[in-house]
Parts: sequence; structure tokens; C-alpha cells
Amino acid sequence: MASTTKPLQELIDALTKLPGIGRKTAQRLAFHILKSSKEEAQRLANAILDVKEKIFLCSQCFNITDTDPCSICADPNRSDEIICVVEQPSDMMAIETIGEFKGKYHILHGALSPLSGVGPENLKIKELIERVKKGRVKEVIIATNPDAEGSATALYLTKLLKPLNVKVTRIAEGVPSGGNLEYIDPATLRKSLEGRREV
Amino acid sequence: MASTTKPLQELIDALTKLPGIGRKTAQRLAFHILKSSKEEAQRLANAILDVKEKIFLCSQCFNITDTDPCSICADPNRSDEIICVVEQPSDMMAIETIGEFKGKYHILHGALSPLSGVGPENLKIKELIERVKKGRVKEVIIATNPDAEGSATALYLTKLLKPLNVKVTRIAEGVPSGGNLEYIDPATLRKSLEGRREV
Repeated sequence: MASTTKPLQELIDALTKLPGIGRKTAQRLAFHILKSSKEEAQRLANAILDVKEKIFLCSQCFNITDTDPCSICADPNRSDEIICVVEQPSDMMAIETIGEFKGKYHILHGALSPLSGVGPENLKIKELIERVKKGRVKEVIIATNPDAEGSATALYLTKLLKPLNVKVTRIAEGVPSGGNLEYIDPATLRKSLEGRREV
Repeated sequence: MASTTKPLQELIDALTKLPGIGRKTAQRLAFHILKSSKEEAQRLANAILDVKEKIFLCSQCFNITDTDPCSICADPNRSDEIICVVEQPSDMMAIETIGEFKGKYHILHGALSPLSGVGPENLKIKELIERVKKGRVKEVIIATNPDAEGSATALYLTKLLKPLNVKVTRIAEGVPSGGNLEYIDPATLRKSLEGRREV
């Protein structure tokens, strides 16, 4: 647009690259940044740069961290005997919000997906096996997503972990709490029936 | 959240300050920035800083610009005889997208709003009057929003401009093109009837 100044257009272009941000939203955000105080803009810009400069992966669990080992791996109140395996750091953060899991994590950074060219060598699977082989781990909870890739990854991990003499568990699939059976998809209902427990 | 590293949390906090960005979206954006290339993050951060450093208001129309006068005021193919008055630079950009207006603009940077403490002295109204007084302007199109504040501003401007011997017009209010009468609010329908034209 000829009516936009170059710096503003560049900001709109850069914001449009973010996921879920269309041209209209990018324009609204850009105008907000233009009107906000210089300190606020500086803070946002610094936060963006800091995240790229100061964050790396924990050498033990591959969580994103600015200390090594990360705060969770370094926490003496957390058990080394139980490891929860997730696909992404955001999955770990979701589990941490419930505040009940007191073991450690292992972040795979993805799930097996032959169609997208993601094989076992692209994930932190070798590292997980090495951690388990060290012998302190008693249970591995596989908390990959209950979709095609996550389930395939869970199956693959189970096959690798079973021979290591460790308990391997998978998070339950079923009807979400507060959900309504009428609106649940058949695949979930089937899993919910399969996973039924005596009360 | 104890499970998030400080730089990531700071980025999430800074993003949450943006309009329409909640905590979940901020988290998604932050993870995207974390995973994107360093160049891309740098580009976004620079764009944010540039917008604050390089952009100022055009001394003639008060459009945001990085040159003075702005590209529209400096355009010899645009007429000085007709000025379109809008509330915000984004309104001007919206009118520019239709590509039919070939005059100049005047950006008020707001609308009269006694409840929010915005009076005539907070808007670029004095500057508009001075522009018109210079004598080259033949028509002022008042394109403030058709809401309470915008309409009050239009009325106020009309009273100031009429004695200056200049044609003052207001953009048409009515049923939006492609709209359906059944779903249009009564106020718009009333305006649409009032503004009817002979065909």
C-alpha cells in the first residue's frame, strides 16, 4: 500500500509471519505498537531477542531453559524415578499447570511422522533410552498427543522401553471431563469404553 | 508458572499487552518466535523499534510518515482542493485501498468524546481550520466514523467550516453493500431511508 510508511509496512509484514496473525490483525497490532510508549516497544523487542539469545535446551530433559540443568531437573523435590515423555515444551507446561506430577520430564521435540519426514533420529528418543538405561527410572509415562503421530510415537517408544525392564504407561484417552457423550466423536467414545475401569 | 524460563515468560507477558492477544495466543506466538530463525526474530524486533524511531506525523495532514511532507501530501497528482478528514491513520489507509479518492487527507487523531476527556484542543482541529483558511481548499469531506463521537465531531467541524466559505460534505450512512435489510439495525435503516436518492 502506497499509503503506508515503509517502517510501518515492514512491521505489519513481520507480524503477518506469526501464526494465526492475518493482515488485519497485524495492522491493528502495528498501530498499537506505534501508539504505545517507547519503553513498551523496547521491552517487546528485547523480549523477542532475549528469547532467541538466552534460551537453549536442558541437557537432561531437553526442556527449553536458561539454566542447565533446567529448574525442573535441578529440583531436589522431584523424583528421578518417574519420567513423563511429551512432544513439546508447551505440553510439559500444560501438565505443570495441574501441579500434580512430581517426577521429571523428557521432551521429544515432535512426534514420528513419516509423511513429514520426521523419523526417530529427528526426535530426542536416543537420549530418552540412555536416560532410562542409567537405571534410576522406574516408570515412563508416555504423554504424547492422542492423535495418529503421537500414538505411533507411543507405540514405538513402548517397544524400545519394554526390554529395559521399566514400567511403561500411557495417559488415558476418553471422554473429556464436563463433556457430553452426544457430541463426542466415535473414536474417543470407543477409547473411553475400552479404557473403562471398575468403580 | 515455575515451569517456564524467565526470558520466555517475559516475552509472553510483553505479547499479552498487545490488543486482542490473550495468554494462550501469547504463548503460541512466543513458542513460534523461539523456534523461528534468529534472523526472523531480529527482523521483527527491529521492525518494532524502527516504527517507534522513524515514524512521526506529517506537518501538513498529520498522517504517520517517515518523510515530511508525507508521500500523499507530496504527490503532485493529488488535488489540494479537496480534503478528506478522518479520525485515524488506519481510516485513511482504508479509504486509500479503494483507490478512488485523489485529494489530500487530514487526520484528527481521534474524535470528540467529553466522557473520555477528549475536547477540540486534543484533536488536530485548529490545524484543519488553518489549512482551510489558506484558501485553496474547495471541499472538505468529513469521514469520521458514523458513531456517536464521530457524528458529534462531524457536526462540530461543520459549524467551524461553514463560515469559511467552503463546501462541507459528510460520507453517506446506510445499508452496507451486500448487506441484508433483515439483519440491519434500525438506526442504520433510518439513516438509509433519510439518505435516499432519486434514481
